[in-house]
Amino acid sequence: MLIQIPDILTRDEVAHCRRVLEASPWVDGRVTAGQQAALTKNNLQIPVDSKEAAELGDIVLRALGRNPLFNSAVMPLRVLPPMFNRYDVGMKFGAHVDGSIRAISGTGMRMRADVSTTIFLTEPEEYDGGELVIEDTYGAHEVKLPAGHAVVYPASSLHSVKEITRGSRWGSFFWSQSMIKDQERRSMLYDLDRAIMGTRARLPDDDPAVLSLANVYHNLLRHWAEL
Amino acid sequence: MLIQIPDILTRDEVAHCRRVLEASPWVDGRVTAGQQAALTKNNLQIPVDSKEAAELGDIVLRALGRNPLFNSAVMPLRVLPPMFNRYDVGMKFGAHVDGSIRAISGTGMRMRADVSTTIFLTEPEEYDGGELVIEDTYGAHEVKLPAGHAVVYPASSLHSVKEITRGSRWGSFFWSQSMIKDQERRSMLYDLDRAIMGTRARLPDDDPAVLSLANVYHNLLRHWAEL
Amino acid sequence: MLIQIPDILTRDEVAHCRRVLEASPWVDGRVTAGQQAALTKNNLQIPVDSKEAAELGDIVLRALGRNPLFNSAVMPLRVLPPMFNRYDVGMKFGAHVDGSIRAISGTGMRMRADVSTTIFLTEPEEYDGGELVIEDTYGAHEVKLPAGHAVVYPASSLHSVKEITRGSRWGSFFWSQSMIKDQERRSMLYDLDRAIMGTRARLPDDDPAVLSLANVYHNLLRHWAEL
Amino acid sequence: MLIQIPDILTRDEVAHCRRVLEASPWVDGRVTAGQQAALTKNNLQIPVDSKEAAELGDIVLRALGRNPLFNSAVMPLRVLPPMFNRYDVGMKFGAHVDGSIRAISGTGMRMRADVSTTIFLTEPEEYDGGELVIEDTYGAHEVKLPAGHAVVYPASSLHSVKEITRGSRWGSFFWSQSMIKDQERRSMLYDLDRAIMGTRARLPDDDPAVLSLANVYHNLLRHWAEL
Amino acid sequence: MLIQIPDILTRDEVAHCRRVLEASPWVDGRVTAGQQAALTKNNLQIPVDSKEAAELGDIVLRALGRNPLFNSAVMPLRVLPPMFNRYDVGMKFGAHVDGSIRAISGTGMRMRADVSTTIFLTEPEEYDGGELVIEDTYGAHEVKLPAGHAVVYPASSLHSVKEITRGSRWGSFFWSQSMIKDQERRSMLYDLDRAIMGTRARLPDDDPAVLSLANVYHNLLRHWAEL
Amino acid sequence: MLIQIPDILTRDEVAHCRRVLEASPWVDGRVTAGQQAALTKNNLQIPVDSKEAAELGDIVLRALGRNPLFNSAVMPLRVLPPMFNRYDVGMKFGAHVDGSIRAISGTGMRMRADVSTTIFLTEPEEYDGGELVIEDTYGAHEVKLPAGHAVVYPASSLHSVKEITRGSRWGSFFWSQSMIKDQERRSMLYDLDRAIMGTRARLPDDDPAVLSLANVYHNLLRHWAEL
Ligand code: NI
Ligand code: NI
Ligand code: NI
Ligand code: NI
Ligand code: NI
Ligand code: NI
Repeated sequence: MLIQIPDILTRDEVAHCRRVLEASPWVDGRVTAGQQAALTKNNLQIPVDSKEAAELGDIVLRALGRNPLFNSAVMPLRVLPPMFNRYDVGMKFGAHVDGSIRAISGTGMRMRADVSTTIFLTEPEEYDGGELVIEDTYGAHEVKLPAGHAVVYPASSLHSVKEITRGSRWGSFFWSQSMIKDQERRSMLYDLDRAIMGTRARLPDDDPAVLSLANVYHNLLRHWAEL
Repeated sequence: MLIQIPDILTRDEVAHCRRVLEASPWVDGRVTAGQQAALTKNNLQIPVDSKEAAELGDIVLRALGRNPLFNSAVMPLRVLPPMFNRYDVGMKFGAHVDGSIRAISGTGMRMRADVSTTIFLTEPEEYDGGELVIEDTYGAHEVKLPAGHAVVYPASSLHSVKEITRGSRWGSFFWSQSMIKDQERRSMLYDLDRAIMGTRARLPDDDPAVLSLANVYHNLLRHWAEL
Repeated sequence: MLIQIPDILTRDEVAHCRRVLEASPWVDGRVTAGQQAALTKNNLQIPVDSKEAAELGDIVLRALGRNPLFNSAVMPLRVLPPMFNRYDVGMKFGAHVDGSIRAISGTGMRMRADVSTTIFLTEPEEYDGGELVIEDTYGAHEVKLPAGHAVVYPASSLHSVKEITRGSRWGSFFWSQSMIKDQERRSMLYDLDRAIMGTRARLPDDDPAVLSLANVYHNLLRHWAEL
Repeated sequence: MLIQIPDILTRDEVAHCRRVLEASPWVDGRVTAGQQAALTKNNLQIPVDSKEAAELGDIVLRALGRNPLFNSAVMPLRVLPPMFNRYDVGMKFGAHVDGSIRAISGTGMRMRADVSTTIFLTEPEEYDGGELVIEDTYGAHEVKLPAGHAVVYPASSLHSVKEITRGSRWGSFFWSQSMIKDQERRSMLYDLDRAIMGTRARLPDDDPAVLSLANVYHNLLRHWAEL
Repeated sequence: MLIQIPDILTRDEVAHCRRVLEASPWVDGRVTAGQQAALTKNNLQIPVDSKEAAELGDIVLRALGRNPLFNSAVMPLRVLPPMFNRYDVGMKFGAHVDGSIRAISGTGMRMRADVSTTIFLTEPEEYDGGELVIEDTYGAHEVKLPAGHAVVYPASSLHSVKEITRGSRWGSFFWSQSMIKDQERRSMLYDLDRAIMGTRARLPDDDPAVLSLANVYHNLLRHWAEL
Repeated sequence: MLIQIPDILTRDEVAHCRRVLEASPWVDGRVTAGQQAALTKNNLQIPVDSKEAAELGDIVLRALGRNPLFNSAVMPLRVLPPMFNRYDVGMKFGAHVDGSIRAISGTGMRMRADVSTTIFLTEPEEYDGGELVIEDTYGAHEVKLPAGHAVVYPASSLHSVKEITRGSRWGSFFWSQSMIKDQERRSMLYDLDRAIMGTRARLPDDDPAVLSLANVYHNLLRHWAEL
């Protein structure tokens, strides 16, 4: 399930992020990659324990908290502190699936990476290449979104970032552990949530059918949620 | 989940069943009981391989096939040939749960008993006692229905038939293996089915919300069904 | 599974709770209700972050900790801080299922509401109406218990509190996340626990059959527990 | 998981199917659609109990039996007898998910529709429109394959056939119940199967690592398979 | 879970089997092995579709039907027709796990191989070597039983037959699909069954604790059984 | 799954542990046993809240952290602080399974005991008896390892420590909650991990088959991990 979330960051937030990133130190992205991902990863990122990463990470987390679409699609239990990276000309990230277990830095805790999110911080016009490619056996989706937009996709999907041939692609990236581990279940809950919203657009909130649908949603979420 | 199904048999079918049963041989009900149920079972039934059992069983099975409420609540994959029993004065069936695996007589096959169904063939006025009691830890439901009505309850529930103190209580009894083994899931599908029917009573069949709800129902049924 | 727990609070604890509540501020119960529950909820409660709620909540949590029946039936992993509410004449809470995911106030954490518990703080003679009604499709259980007694029921059940027509009904209410999410499994473990206690009442603790049953209990709990 | 299977039918088989279909009666496709699918389905098909359907169905089933890619991707337990349909100018099939439980005609049995398969019987050049569109929330895959090729996709996906604007699109269509109900698991087994084939292309069959991988594959299949 | 079942065949049955086998044709055992098992399998067996295999298979199947220990340990849903094999001097079967899905010859059906059973038809004194070795990571069990005895072990375990250095080892071998796919669950049900038998040896059959334990057993079996 | 881990502690660490333990107070081991384990437990241990237990526990935890075999076999999410015990002449621990839920002392938290680990701190020559016996229905594994070596076994297995007849057996013991609750799954992941290591010993790290196998491992771990 790929979901595009428009305007998860405001224009002002994007602008602020870019200003801070311009003044940040950048290091080789392989420092946070697992052994095998390091074979194919070629980009830059700001240190995960820098004050810039902390400040911008808070902006992103606040943005997630206020976004109903992100919450309905991901149902996040834990979110790894957002990372910030850039791909300059010649950089790319080969096809890989994301590692399943991640340490949450500075806490001694770990989380499961169920869902990957990329927030674009540069406009599509600012660079060539750099498409996020989500592959399945038959074909591939290519994703390149306006600055401030996000794409959410399974951490288990085979995905890559194409080589940059002009300009630079900046973004924020993070993993979420979902309360609903299984993709198909998460997708059914998302579909049910949206179908109920569609019903509520036509029927009053206290219609018995609407109340019954909400009860089913809550009981299904309770049946599947792992906290 | 206890569900009452009114008029699963028509008046004519009830009358016909009673005429056939009046002319039937009756044997001790312990012949079809497991070792432990036999300790508390005290009733009469017609032989499971008699031609009367076969004829009346077909009537019951046809009645199930045409009843949407039974099918929505039970989602039967297999139904054991219906049995026919009677409790005369002094007879009863002590508290028990139903055996989990049953041989389907004459086939070499077995099925899992998920759901129990009792169809009443005598009117409540014709006998005293004989309530079907479905217990849970806090209390108990007592069920005594008009002839032709049925009650559906989990085979795993602790249940009993109270002693008859006047008249005679006749009934048909059978087990179903459901496509949805788990009670909570079966109950959620039933609730969703009815909530969708409630929605369709107010919105047209091709409303996008109605179509989406039907898609969710089908995908949830597919996710859980074991055939 | 509905379970009644007598005397979970002592007479002294009930009396103390009532004295504190008499001196407490009461606010509209809708402040802690979700959007849809608010449509049908009409009662009063003391603020969840008041010092009275904290003090009385501790009394309730200590009472839970010392009650083997509560622990066997609920197997709590997390308990939301207890709330205290009252229904005066004309107040009620319409049929609803409880929301599935609750924030634990002041912690940034969330929990799953699996089991609901109501502790009665006023005697049945002190008010008319106010029954807690737990519905299933066939019928309904009505629960009205002496002060200090509790009732435990699935948060997924459809339940309501009937309108008060005389006096006032005071109670404590809270949700638990169980180590055993699934109701049927929780119920089987509870039944096995009690059957083993029954066996130990007749056979010595070091009887091989008793030891084997305890091993099965522990391995089954381990097989299902989510912590 | 969408998988394209080239040349599942030989050129001769395609030619034979087309000759038989040319001489067949065609009926409205709504006769085999559920109540809601009938709202959006507009095509023609040959009667499921015709001798032509039986003969051509056997050809398709034999073709499946000899195709390792189909068997690795679908792991079919049951296959509903293949159907044969055509879309002429102006015909289409609106977005829908496939019904989850299907009767197997003439057997009294039912099966679960897990995987949908379309085999194309006309060449892409013979018609305009008629793309099979498999939608997900972000975007859509459009599939239009040479005659004799097949596409396999989840029955739970939202899919449609676009309106024909020139020529006619002929195809065979059928559902499979997989031994592996869950899509993610089926996909992991498929990936493991292919990774093992890749390893065996480089290492001898009796290499200990190859043998160990085959053991894991068999134990994982055993762990998940429902027969 | 390895379980030894003494005297599953009587002395007379063993003697009869041996007489029939002496007059049977023997073929290379690789004919029924999968591609990888064939690399390490070196024994003889009688053709699976011979009249001898059919006659002796029926003897074995009848013996299984009357054996409560086999049924409690395996809970068989389907049993593949028994095979009969021999290992002469120099023959052996290298370490392997058994294939997970087997065709049931002559039926068009398949089954899942959950549990493997070997019945010994020659006495330990009649041959040297030929131990059945069931390995786990730490060590290994070696099994060599009197004629007529059986050993039951998971088809997923890594196992082998050691090379014969004197005499000949004859046996019957077959796979079962269990109603309880998961080994740990099957093992808990087996332990509970035996603990209940132990309790019933000390307490009367209608003791409430005994009845409650039997109810738990039936509900647990129902919860897990796949038929 | 029993797994032996050689040299989990270095010689120096073992020597240091022994020196500290020699100067420690020892108390009756029953203080940390559940009600039923206390019936059969007879050994000595150092107090779980002593400074010696804390210091030595840290040494053990650091040793676990650096041991890939322990991490691949156990996949620990939580580890209860290690305990240190001794069996002198005449002491033993009768057959038992370990309790399933344990309080983590000093934290108010609990964990599930999935995997038991014993690290030997005395050499086999220093005592007679004292074998750790892991039983299954067919037979038993006896384990007695050099100082510094560990054995890992399921907490659900029936196990015991044989009576000491000469000398003294010192050890460290602790429970782990695994990210993978189910034994069979943990075992398959372990087998896959080792098969991939075997493959990587023969093929380069960036071989497509190696990369695909690593992807399957990560997706399978993600599918099963509970954090
Ligand atoms: Ni990635
Ligand atoms: Ni019954
Ligand atoms: Ni409520
Ligand atoms: Ni379709
Ligand atoms: Ni084998
Ligand atoms: Ni132990």
